[in-house]
Amino acid sequence: MALSKKPTTGMKDILPEEMQIRDYVMGVIKETYGKFGFTSIETPCVENIANLSSKQGGDNEKLIFKILKRGEKLNVEAATTEDEVVDSGLRYDLTVPLVRFYSNNAAQLPSPFKSLQMGNVWRADRPQRGRYRQFMQCDIDILGEPSNLAEIELILATTTTLGKLGFKGFQIRINERRILKAMAAYSGFPEESYDSVFITLDKMDKIGLEGVEEELLSNGFAKESVDKYLELFKGLEEAEDGVAYLANVLEGFLKPDVEQSLQEIIASVKATKSSDFEIVFDATLVRGMSYYTGTIFEIAMPEFGGSCGGGGRYDKMVGKFTGKDVPACGFSIGFERIILLLMESGFKVPSQPEKVAYLIEKGVNGEALCQVIAEAQDARKDGTQVLVARMNKNKKFQKEQLEKEGYTQFKEFYKDPLKQ
Amino acid sequence: MALSKKPTTGMKDILPEEMQIRDYVMGVIKETYGKFGFTSIETPCVENIANLSSKQGGDNEKLIFKILKRGEKLNVEAATTEDEVVDSGLRYDLTVPLVRFYSNNAAQLPSPFKSLQMGNVWRADRPQRGRYRQFMQCDIDILGEPSNLAEIELILATTTTLGKLGFKGFQIRINERRILKAMAAYSGFPEESYDSVFITLDKMDKIGLEGVEEELLSNGFAKESVDKYLELFKGLEEAEDGVAYLANVLEGFLKPDVEQSLQEIIASVKATKSSDFEIVFDATLVRGMSYYTGTIFEIAMPEFGGSCGGGGRYDKMVGKFTGKDVPACGFSIGFERIILLLMESGFKVPSQPEKVAYLIEKGVNGEALCQVIAEAQDARKDGTQVLVARMNKNKKFQKEQLEKEGYTQFKEFYKDPLKQ
Repeated sequence: MALSKKPTTGMKDILPEEMQIRDYVMGVIKETYGKFGFTSIETPCVENIANLSSKQGGDNEKLIFKILKRGEKLNVEAATTEDEVVDSGLRYDLTVPLVRFYSNNAAQLPSPFKSLQMGNVWRADRPQRGRYRQFMQCDIDILGEPSNLAEIELILATTTTLGKLGFKGFQIRINERRILKAMAAYSGFPEESYDSVFITLDKMDKIGLEGVEEELLSNGFAKESVDKYLELFKGLEEAEDGVAYLANVLEGFLKPDVEQSLQEIIASVKATKSSDFEIVFDATLVRGMSYYTGTIFEIAMPEFGGSCGGGGRYDKMVGKFTGKDVPACGFSIGFERIILLLMESGFKVPSQPEKVAYLIEKGVNGEALCQVIAEAQDARKDGTQVLVARMNKNKKFQKEQLEKEGYTQFKEFYKDPLKQ
Repeated sequence: MALSKKPTTGMKDILPEEMQIRDYVMGVIKETYGKFGFTSIETPCVENIANLSSKQGGDNEKLIFKILKRGEKLNVEAATTEDEVVDSGLRYDLTVPLVRFYSNNAAQLPSPFKSLQMGNVWRADRPQRGRYRQFMQCDIDILGEPSNLAEIELILATTTTLGKLGFKGFQIRINERRILKAMAAYSGFPEESYDSVFITLDKMDKIGLEGVEEELLSNGFAKESVDKYLELFKGLEEAEDGVAYLANVLEGFLKPDVEQSLQEIIASVKATKSSDFEIVFDATLVRGMSYYTGTIFEIAMPEFGGSCGGGGRYDKMVGKFTGKDVPACGFSIGFERIILLLMESGFKVPSQPEKVAYLIEKGVNGEALCQVIAEAQDARKDGTQVLVARMNKNKKFQKEQLEKEGYTQFKEFYKDPLKQ
């Protein structure tokens, strides 16, 4: 037959063992975020292609799975471009759909609105180990809150959740797009080149100060600007309070309330955190998406090279849908990385129900079968997980398999009651 | 701006109020099915187009959202047919993906394998009230169990779940594809016309015996066959035990073990059911999908005209992927209909945490803000849901809105402590 047993390229089947951990993590996330007043919403996985191609998604827009028009609207023979044959696509993140959702439903939502979204997103990335073309994202966002209370609550909710999942000793790195810009302006880089400068800066942890210097110079930036820029980072290395140091040096380029707000976020999180992590200012943190307008942050795990989630403030995106800006700030947990870390660490889901397997010989039927099933129904009422199965020919192997699934008790039922 | 606030045609945004009920129902489903030994799995929402177009999906195959090829594989200009530009599509059900999953992973799965799948499926149906192009399905299936223990467990698990959700007085209607066929054979319909006969029979509840008679005759079937067929249904109306009656009349057309197995399912479910429903034999039950090979069943709710879920045995589908048949039986809950019924009945999610809103005046910052947040963190540890928000100018309206969301207690924090 022509049917393919494999999942489509770059996507994966999730087996019960992993699924159990995923279900558990989703449960902890929903419960913990719920305690902070976040409410779940859901948006369709499919969005209009115009929304997905609106430049909010940066490079992800190159990776969209596009969906064919249907019926009379589709004329493949006459079409010469992709645009003519598609009208929608699979979402590549949860932020663009959230902002559309908010724009569509704001009248029915509280203000501020605290949203929790868990759902799959799709990106046609080159397939590689541990990275899939369908993956789960888990985002919390606060819309309609202009003050830094949004950032504080988002960071506390996310770190509390990570703590409940057993993660310790991680870092929240925090920065401000306006500080990034002020540093570039102070150094004399031309405004239209900021994004290019930040792309180089983003490599600091890999190539170091010298590497950044080299790349900026080879990209044709003035030596004077590059020197001034690097001086700032050298100064930061010695500064006790990085934010205060920059606020001082960048006077005239940075509004004083930016420093005050960022200091307040860091201090509040330090004072009220309920799990084991640190929050640190990191002037080299860039975060790729161009939609960020203020604070940006990222989770760094010691067990994992790279980010395990991040977010920031994006006060200008709702306006793209409604014409009127609404303050917005979000934090996304790297759900798939969290699962990967838990699986690799041999994590076991806590407090499972007692698991009993009832094995029934083939000849047990009618009234006798009823009795076994009734007994199973009673045990389930008491909270026990009962698997009712026919006894295989190789009973020993069957039991070994069931033990792997966590069944610790067995009860056998035979046609001949004496065998029992 | 060109951005659209509305979801794409036929799909919907799910607001917090509905989402809370959906989350609760999903939780009950997972927990209850878990007690029966079903384990969760997940398959990608995207499947290869060849699998989706393999005639397993019946009419649903006409409703596939097809996904465009990417990169060099795509040449819209040269293409003249749909097939040339697509390589995958969104799944229209969870059964075809499950069977592919099982074929791909059987070596790592227990035997029998009891699967629970909850996930969205997509059908490009004509949009209509209450029916959406993206909707959730919730399926349990047992693969590798040839005996009727599979049917008994599926029906008990599903009805126990419905009972836990508060549904009462519903019916499980049950029939057998082999009885349907034996009735048609006994009446003398030609074998190639069985599907056409069953399509007419399926309308019995709407058009009655006379309507069925009329339609069969006008479809050109022999009067003698139609008369003989209708006699069977008239006989059934008077029979005390429909299955026994048919087994008797259809002798020679129906294997005796079909009667025995069906009787055993009905008797076992009656004897061991833990919620308020009836199980009834219904010789007019057809179930559309051609892949069913044995037992078929359906949930009928008094509150709802039409089916709220169904399923049956499909012993021949795994063989389409692997070349070797594996016995299989499944039951799908009509998740969206269940949600609709609960919403319409004013259902409230039980045992919610205490919900307190902390309203903070704009001027409360720095150390004072820290104290409020620390207090919220403490209350959350005790299980309380605490919303921390800035006080709006119209505090009265803000509180009214929060009361609608279930916040029953308020605590206000002012810059001037005397105001508190």
